[in-house]
Amino acid sequence: MVRRVKAVAFDMYGTVVDVGAVADACKEVTADPVAFTSQWRTKQLEYTFLRTLMGKYQNFWKVSEQALEFTIQRFGLQLSPEQRKRLMEAWLYPSPYPDVPSVLPRLRERYPLAIFSNGSPKMLRTGLEHTGLRPCFRWVISVDAAKQYKPSPQVYQLAPRSMKLKKEEILFVSSNSFDVIGAKSFGFKVCWINRSGALLDPLGPRPDLVVKDFEELRSALQ
Amino acid sequence: MVRRVKAVAFDMYGTVVDVGAVADACKEVTADPVAFTSQWRTKQLEYTFLRTLMGKYQNFWKVSEQALEFTIQRFGLQLSPEQRKRLMEAWLYPSPYPDVPSVLPRLRERYPLAIFSNGSPKMLRTGLEHTGLRPCFRWVISVDAAKQYKPSPQVYQLAPRSMKLKKEEILFVSSNSFDVIGAKSFGFKVCWINRSGALLDPLGPRPDLVVKDFEELRSALQ
Repeated sequence: MVRRVKAVAFDMYGTVVDVGAVADACKEVTADPVAFTSQWRTKQLEYTFLRTLMGKYQNFWKVSEQALEFTIQRFGLQLSPEQRKRLMEAWLYPSPYPDVPSVLPRLRERYPLAIFSNGSPKMLRTGLEHTGLRPCFRWVISVDAAKQYKPSPQVYQLAPRSMKLKKEEILFVSSNSFDVIGAKSFGFKVCWINRSGALLDPLGPRPDLVVKDFEELRSALQ
Repeated sequence: MVRRVKAVAFDMYGTVVDVGAVADACKEVTADPVAFTSQWRTKQLEYTFLRTLMGKYQNFWKVSEQALEFTIQRFGLQLSPEQRKRLMEAWLYPSPYPDVPSVLPRLRERYPLAIFSNGSPKMLRTGLEHTGLRPCFRWVISVDAAKQYKPSPQVYQLAPRSMKLKKEEILFVSSNSFDVIGAKSFGFKVCWINRSGALLDPLGPRPDLVVKDFEELRSALQ
């Protein structure tokens, strides 16, 4: 599988950093932070799909704010501007999954690495500095340059263009089923990090490799 | 609002016919038919978004089968081909909302009417014959002609083209928030039938008219 792989590109949210940690920030405002975070995340992704389909791109920060607004209303909450700000900041200062900080530096010895994410440039910059992971990555690529979101092929095209590689030379790693399918449909080699035993959506494309965490990914790339 | 409206186009599933009725068919296979149907519907729409974004169109029948497959697996069910067939047939033989059959013939006296739906041509033909509503509509327009799904503007463009009207001369009626927003973003006049007191997704575009059912729509158009 890894023959001809010349670089590895990672999705950010849910793959390198734990969006579940956003739930911690939500504990302040709701008795059911898991359901609140799940609704927020679902709407956040739905809005990226809808805005791309409508040709009405706004960056991931704004989309996340709009998804939060919907979620607050759906849960019938009254939140102050300060509370909203603290919830949004969970996306600026995320936590990596525990297996990430030890594995990435070792992977970097073998392959140049990239982040390739829906996140806005500011979100990615802040998040990578906060987690201390910035030095691991040669490239930090935001979909913002294409003014569309995954899984549009025009978005995936940003990675080979920025990395000056062919798409089949890039191993793209994501935990998100739609991103795995979109990336494989585009033509990357694809690894699905499936931490939770999720189901792959049966749309046709399947990952080349499925692992349960970064340690397994490292072993597979040896 | 209704000045210059020359025709009225309706979304089909969830607007004219009750997708909640699909839950009846699911009672046979699960103790929680509402959750099962909700998951099925969510995946069905998600797959229309993803396939359009990836440029990998398949028709609404196939997409619905794939969404059913995911839902069956997610619920951990073992279903026979016969059971799957009966579940899918709920989409072929849907029930109109109770207020629909009395209102549509009266609306038709004032405006030519259209169905404009994600449904495949066969699904629409079968569903409209089954419900007896076919004579109400001058046009039956499936997105299948564009090989994309709502809310892509290329899809909405099918309606003015088929109906030989300008987009702002068409009142588009839907119960689905994303469809209301997409249609308004495209340039139709838009009515949101909000039977359940749902929230509009805060993406910007807002309907010209919000009603709770077809009777209220009829009153507003007088």
